Amino acid sequence: MAAAKPENLSLVVHGPGDLRLENYPIPEPGPNEVLLRMHSVGICGSDVHYWQHGRIGDFIVKKPMVLGHEASGTVVKVGSWSMCPFTAALPLLTFSSPGDRVAIEPGALREMDEFCKIGRYNLSPSIFFCATPPDDGNLCRFYKHNADFCYKLPDNVTFEEGALIEPLSVGIHACRRAGITLGNKVFVCGAGPIGLVTLIVAKAMGAAQVVVTDLSATRLSKAKEVGADFVLQISKESPKEIASKVEDLLGCKPEAGIYATRAGGTLVLVGLGSEMTTVPLVHAATGRWISRVFRYCNTWPMAISMLASKSVNVKPLVTHRFPLEKALEAFETSRKGLGLKVMLKCDPNDQNP
Amino acid sequence: MAAAKPENLSLVVHGPGDLRLENYPIPEPGPNEVLLRMHSVGICGSDVHYWQHGRIGDFIVKKPMVLGHEASGTVVKVGSWSMCPFTAALPLLTFSSPGDRVAIEPGALREMDEFCKIGRYNLSPSIFFCATPPDDGNLCRFYKHNADFCYKLPDNVTFEEGALIEPLSVGIHACRRAGITLGNKVFVCGAGPIGLVTLIVAKAMGAAQVVVTDLSATRLSKAKEVGADFVLQISKESPKEIASKVEDLLGCKPEAGIYATRAGGTLVLVGLGSEMTTVPLVHAATGRWISRVFRYCNTWPMAISMLASKSVNVKPLVTHRFPLEKALEAFETSRKGLGLKVMLKCDPNDQNP
Amino acid sequence: MAAAKPENLSLVVHGPGDLRLENYPIPEPGPNEVLLRMHSVGICGSDVHYWQHGRIGDFIVKKPMVLGHEASGTVVKVGSWSMCPFTAALPLLTFSSPGDRVAIEPGALREMDEFCKIGRYNLSPSIFFCATPPDDGNLCRFYKHNADFCYKLPDNVTFEEGALIEPLSVGIHACRRAGITLGNKVFVCGAGPIGLVTLIVAKAMGAAQVVVTDLSATRLSKAKEVGADFVLQISKESPKEIASKVEDLLGCKPEAGIYATRAGGTLVLVGLGSEMTTVPLVHAATGRWISRVFRYCNTWPMAISMLASKSVNVKPLVTHRFPLEKALEAFETSRKGLGLKVMLKCDPNDQNP
Amino acid sequence: MAAAKPENLSLVVHGPGDLRLENYPIPEPGPNEVLLRMHSVGICGSDVHYWQHGRIGDFIVKKPMVLGHEASGTVVKVGSWSMCPFTAALPLLTFSSPGDRVAIEPGALREMDEFCKIGRYNLSPSIFFCATPPDDGNLCRFYKHNADFCYKLPDNVTFEEGALIEPLSVGIHACRRAGITLGNKVFVCGAGPIGLVTLIVAKAMGAAQVVVTDLSATRLSKAKEVGADFVLQISKESPKEIASKVEDLLGCKPEAGIYATRAGGTLVLVGLGSEMTTVPLVHAATGRWISRVFRYCNTWPMAISMLASKSVNVKPLVTHRFPLEKALEAFETSRKGLGLKVMLKCDPNDQNP
Ligand SMILES: NC(=O)c1ccc[n+]([C@@H]2O[C@H](COP(=O)([O-])OP(=O)(O)OC[C@H]3O[C@@H](n4cnc5c(N)ncnc54)[C@H](O)[C@@H]3O)[C@@H](O)[C@H]2O)c1
Ligand SMILES: NC(=O)c1ccc[n+]([C@@H]2O[C@H](COP(=O)([O-])OP(=O)(O)OC[C@H]3O[C@@H](n4cnc5c(N)ncnc54)[C@H](O)[C@@H]3O)[C@@H](O)[C@H]2O)c1
Ligand SMILES: NC(=O)c1ccc[n+]([C@@H]2O[C@H](COP(=O)([O-])OP(=O)(O)OC[C@H]3O[C@@H](n4cnc5c(N)ncnc54)[C@H](O)[C@@H]3O)[C@@H](O)[C@H]2O)c1
Ligand SMILES: NC(=O)c1ccc[n+]([C@@H]2O[C@H](COP(=O)([O-])OP(=O)(O)OC[C@H]3O[C@@H](n4cnc5c(N)ncnc54)[C@H](O)[C@@H]3O)[C@@H](O)[C@H]2O)c1
Ligand SMILES: [Zn+2]
Ligand SMILES: [Zn+2]
Ligand SMILES: [Zn+2]
Ligand SMILES: [Zn+2]
Repeated sequence: MAAAKPENLSLVVHGPGDLRLENYPIPEPGPNEVLLRMHSVGICGSDVHYWQHGRIGDFIVKKPMVLGHEASGTVVKVGSWSMCPFTAALPLLTFSSPGDRVAIEPGALREMDEFCKIGRYNLSPSIFFCATPPDDGNLCRFYKHNADFCYKLPDNVTFEEGALIEPLSVGIHACRRAGITLGNKVFVCGAGPIGLVTLIVAKAMGAAQVVVTDLSATRLSKAKEVGADFVLQISKESPKEIASKVEDLLGCKPEAGIYATRAGGTLVLVGLGSEMTTVPLVHAATGRWISRVFRYCNTWPMAISMLASKSVNVKPLVTHRFPLEKALEAFETSRKGLGLKVMLKCDPNDQNP
Repeated sequence: MAAAKPENLSLVVHGPGDLRLENYPIPEPGPNEVLLRMHSVGICGSDVHYWQHGRIGDFIVKKPMVLGHEASGTVVKVGSWSMCPFTAALPLLTFSSPGDRVAIEPGALREMDEFCKIGRYNLSPSIFFCATPPDDGNLCRFYKHNADFCYKLPDNVTFEEGALIEPLSVGIHACRRAGITLGNKVFVCGAGPIGLVTLIVAKAMGAAQVVVTDLSATRLSKAKEVGADFVLQISKESPKEIASKVEDLLGCKPEAGIYATRAGGTLVLVGLGSEMTTVPLVHAATGRWISRVFRYCNTWPMAISMLASKSVNVKPLVTHRFPLEKALEAFETSRKGLGLKVMLKCDPNDQNP
Repeated sequence: MAAAKPENLSLVVHGPGDLRLENYPIPEPGPNEVLLRMHSVGICGSDVHYWQHGRIGDFIVKKPMVLGHEASGTVVKVGSWSMCPFTAALPLLTFSSPGDRVAIEPGALREMDEFCKIGRYNLSPSIFFCATPPDDGNLCRFYKHNADFCYKLPDNVTFEEGALIEPLSVGIHACRRAGITLGNKVFVCGAGPIGLVTLIVAKAMGAAQVVVTDLSATRLSKAKEVGADFVLQISKESPKEIASKVEDLLGCKPEAGIYATRAGGTLVLVGLGSEMTTVPLVHAATGRWISRVFRYCNTWPMAISMLASKSVNVKPLVTHRFPLEKALEAFETSRKGLGLKVMLKCDPNDQNP
Repeated sequence: MAAAKPENLSLVVHGPGDLRLENYPIPEPGPNEVLLRMHSVGICGSDVHYWQHGRIGDFIVKKPMVLGHEASGTVVKVGSWSMCPFTAALPLLTFSSPGDRVAIEPGALREMDEFCKIGRYNLSPSIFFCATPPDDGNLCRFYKHNADFCYKLPDNVTFEEGALIEPLSVGIHACRRAGITLGNKVFVCGAGPIGLVTLIVAKAMGAAQVVVTDLSATRLSKAKEVGADFVLQISKESPKEIASKVEDLLGCKPEAGIYATRAGGTLVLVGLGSEMTTVPLVHAATGRWISRVFRYCNTWPMAISMLASKSVNVKPLVTHRFPLEKALEAFETSRKGLGLKVMLKCDPNDQNP
């Protein structure tokens, strides 16, 4: 009963269907790293998928992996070696120091490769990415991360907003790629977390009208709540019928469309393109359609600005909260599709948003 | 005294200081033209300038010219010849018909030249432009215009909003050129009509924080009202001091800056660059600065979408209204810098916004 | 008998398989039009297709139509009404006058619609387009065309080069859309006229290495002649095998790829996308792939600059020449796929290139 | 006379006018670094400037500094610690190994800051930059550099071409920023090394006609040799007169203009903007003018592709060669403005290009 041992409760997936709360050692931050006390971590569809299937495509859980990648926390320690790794000349860790509240960008570069140099670091093949095998995530009490990818949160941005920057980033990246601009009429297919952040970002970029479709009335009412101009519940319509209904609502064909559904539906989905994905190219005739983006880059500073200035409001996305100890219950809730974003609270002393 | 003669009261500048309300004949719309019953026309700084000085740069009032170019009205007649002028084959005027409420884009192309072909028709040298010598404007009861440059207003957009699309377009064009995007920190110098529409558009495009400077406290309180995050009243500060105050307010250097002041001030101005304009290039180091745009193009459809969807609110810009008969009083008000946008109401039977 | 009647020999398609040389009246140029004595007109795959099948997709030959849209000639008369059609105020036809040698852009705008205003006039639905039903082409002795879409040729650019600007424009548009830039490694699939102009333009834009594939060894040797760094003759390889061979040749995956084959092959083709075109999206992972462009816009002035400065050489594309009187023989040659570009010489007094 | 001691002859500036050849120790490559045997190093105007004045603007030679930043060499050793500095997990130095011939990008990032993340690493304030105080350059026998910024040269690219990638990069960056594209008419002011690489790159990007101006007839004849369509020797003409002559040569106003002269001339220059630089903005009316770029980024891989494929030829730029031992004579030659690019040969066993 060595109760005094510092402990690090962590949510670990061991294989398909095998999810465990375990006690890990508290890691030691290395050069250019910070140790964080985790506060809020959202559950993503991919976390649930690793738990259910033990893999996503070629990414296979071969050894136990901590889940979680939508996260925020507080810096408790900075790496012992704070010199520049390249030249041992310049101190680096001026940006965050113990006590700082930070949002975590889960993808952290390991090398300055060609993708990094052109500003598309999300494509770097050697990137570290939380909760993508074999890299551990941050559904735990204490977690260390590359200091360059921890972003200080202003006082008026909550930890949960900080954690929501990760899905928000997918929406930012998709809308940037779709080239959303002032006065646009936009079609978002799917009202899950990703569809909703896409909607929120599209409105923030000046879209005049956004129509959101989904199978679920509950999700669509949430879409209304966070700003959809029109929602359209679909069931068995053909793509052509949906297209025609969307056109009726907007008064014209949408200028941009973003698919945020799961694969295998009537429409092509974001992020899971198979080798020969069938894209309804014909719809692209009069606008910009985006169906495939891979994560994001350069979104955290932008998202923090937007949250700090209240240009966007992502708080309504959180529908459930559980303490880390109840992670399995939380995952069960998420798996059942109840609510929208389930938030895990990792700090036993502060369970606030 | 043939009182029955249809009359067309028009505000005509004859030379410096010589502004008259005169009765013009009602024009006959030609091929591809529409005749409009004018409703609301805003007074622009350039209208006042033509009245005061009889010229702006090389544009000289050599013969009497009707003023006004921020305008909206109702179609009362379409041109007799509605065939395509190029091939006499296709009917053209399907877009607007008698009874339609329209906003007028004052620049109307006369030929399909190289600028038109690349989508920058505002640069076409032979363009017709309302109230730019020698072209007549639309501060009158009845006015005819190229039908391609009259845009139908939805029911929920007022005539005054329609008229305000012209200054709004300057703001849209400037913000597009400045590349404003999500989360940007923006500096707008000058809180006149153009500064304010720039602010409104920047916020609509996702700017996180906009700081607006002006000499006048009244104008800055209007800036606050329409969405400025910060305002800064200046008097005799050096550019360096202003730059440092702006940086303090934003917490960093602005990522984009737009000058909307009159020439000859401490900073460079929009639209009136002299041969060797001195631009504070050094400020450009970490961002995008835009100090010279020439009018606009492709803004009306976008602006109408934004107004219809209530993404922007330009109504607070209107501070004064006068019936057309009191145009001289209206111009005097504008000249004195009282209020912000003075609106002339040209339809004696409908003086509503 | 009445030999004095001025005549206008024209190549007319009446329906599938029904191609006739007929005598048409010489047209009279209307407002903003010029009458041209035709000189050189290239045969395009679409001309052959209309002759063979009487249609391309929804474009159906319902009444006799003159073929030909890759053309150049000499201005012999300008329209009687040379005032601006919109305002009857400005003379328009200053740009070309009798005696001018011009290249013809086959798509001529009929109205200043939304597509025209944004500089993408090729998308204008009411556009006139030579030899696309129901619009007549210019495989004839005399032809009238919108003066804004006739571009003066410098003395050092031949009529045939002028005619080749049309296919060259497809290459320019595709390369611009693919974003070809300095040092790029490019893959062009198909070595027909379109594949070859794409290759030529890609090299002119700074591509370091272009690999071209085709089934035909003859076409590939022409590709070598006009600048291909590598050619690859394919027969029954799978897309994966081709991709791997291309990668071997370039030393890396291509950064841009352009498909210029006919539909129904192993790869997707330019210009004929069906409703649910299958695109090998996975290849797009590390670059820009372009498989669907519709015609072109703003290419003639650019192409003329390039030809005049000898930055590109399209002359080797012409493999056969026939006088207009032998048009049926010429079409037969083209149909059999002998050679590459078959040129018809419409001026009996000047059959030079 | 310990002749056996390995020595590292280096060209060191101690202050204004004080340039010495000294024997430095051979450095030891650290983590993520490579040791290089230097081969060819070009003399840049800035090297001469540091020697003559001991400073450029705020960059002051406060302690002895090795000159040289246009360089290539051979890898002789890789850093002892080849693990990823961020995570101590992945081997990094797979890209270059002993024996590799490499070109050196003189600016090497020290941290993954915001500029790096957006792909504009040249703006990173903590960047290491060869021969910019206090960082040593590579005019020496042995030099160590960040391995991520050493680029392998193909066999058919010489060491001197490798060294010339540095000035070539300035031209690439300027042309990219100026948006040079197919068929452009370009004006380059100044026929020094930077003006000439700009010309070479502009042609490679598809410029139809480039006119180059300079005061010196010799330099202009070199401009002709490397591809200028027109050259214009100027002496006392006003900017207006020059503009008019340029327009006559091109047949129209240039679409892009790039200034590559020294400051204080009749026109504004690249790279040395003072606080309130006077830019002839009016010239910008019909095109893109670029007068201020800071170094470059993402140019080496592109330049190597272009050199390997013979798309550009920079060899004629080299007019003089000296062995490292004669560095002072070489600098004197460069200072006098004799020739164009003076190359120092640092490997006593291989003085070939
Ligand atoms: N690109 C990336 O980096 C990235 C990141 C996160 C998520 N994603 C992907 O984005 C997609 C959406 O993520 P999510 O978390 O919102 O998923 P989710 O499953 O919670 O939501 C998807 C929604 O789409 C709805 N839907 C299904 N078929 C539909 C149809 N035919 N029409 C309209 N709506 C339909 C569902 O009812 C559901 O509400 C997933 O495919 C996910 O893999 C991509
Ligand atoms: N580009 C175009 O097509 C276009 C169109 C319309 C107006 N303009 C130009 O835009 C500018 C602004 O137009 P407006 O109608 O808003 O003019 P305005 O005169 O009503 O407003 C200018 C404001 O700038 C303020 N100001 C002056 N000096 C200042 C300084 N140093 N710092 C901060 N504020 C200062 C003034 O107090 C005033 O409130 C004018 O120069 C006008 O010519 C350009
Ligand atoms: N977008 C437009 O506006 C536009 C304009 C003109 C032509 N096009 C289209 O461009 C395409 C090419 O035109 P073209 O005139 O060069 O046609 P073409 O038939 O003369 O040439 C096509 C070439 O592709 C080769 N080919 C066929 N299958 C192949 C494969 N699997 N791999 C490699 N090569 C293969 C053929 O051998 C042939 O040489 C056509 O589909 C045409 O409809 C589009
Ligand atoms: N942006 C960067 O990162 C960067 C890098 C290297 C050089 N530069 C700058 O580029 C400029 C050119 O560099 P360089 O090495 O070619 O210099 P250089 O001195 O060798 O060449 C400048 C040329 O301009 C000519 N010239 C001077 N006044 C002229 C005028 N009024 N009109 C026409 N020609 C005139 C001179 O005769 C000379 O041949 C310098 O200002 C340098 O500082 C910038
Ligand atoms: Zn996720
Ligand atoms: Zn105005
Ligand atoms: Zn064709
Ligand atoms: Zn240099």
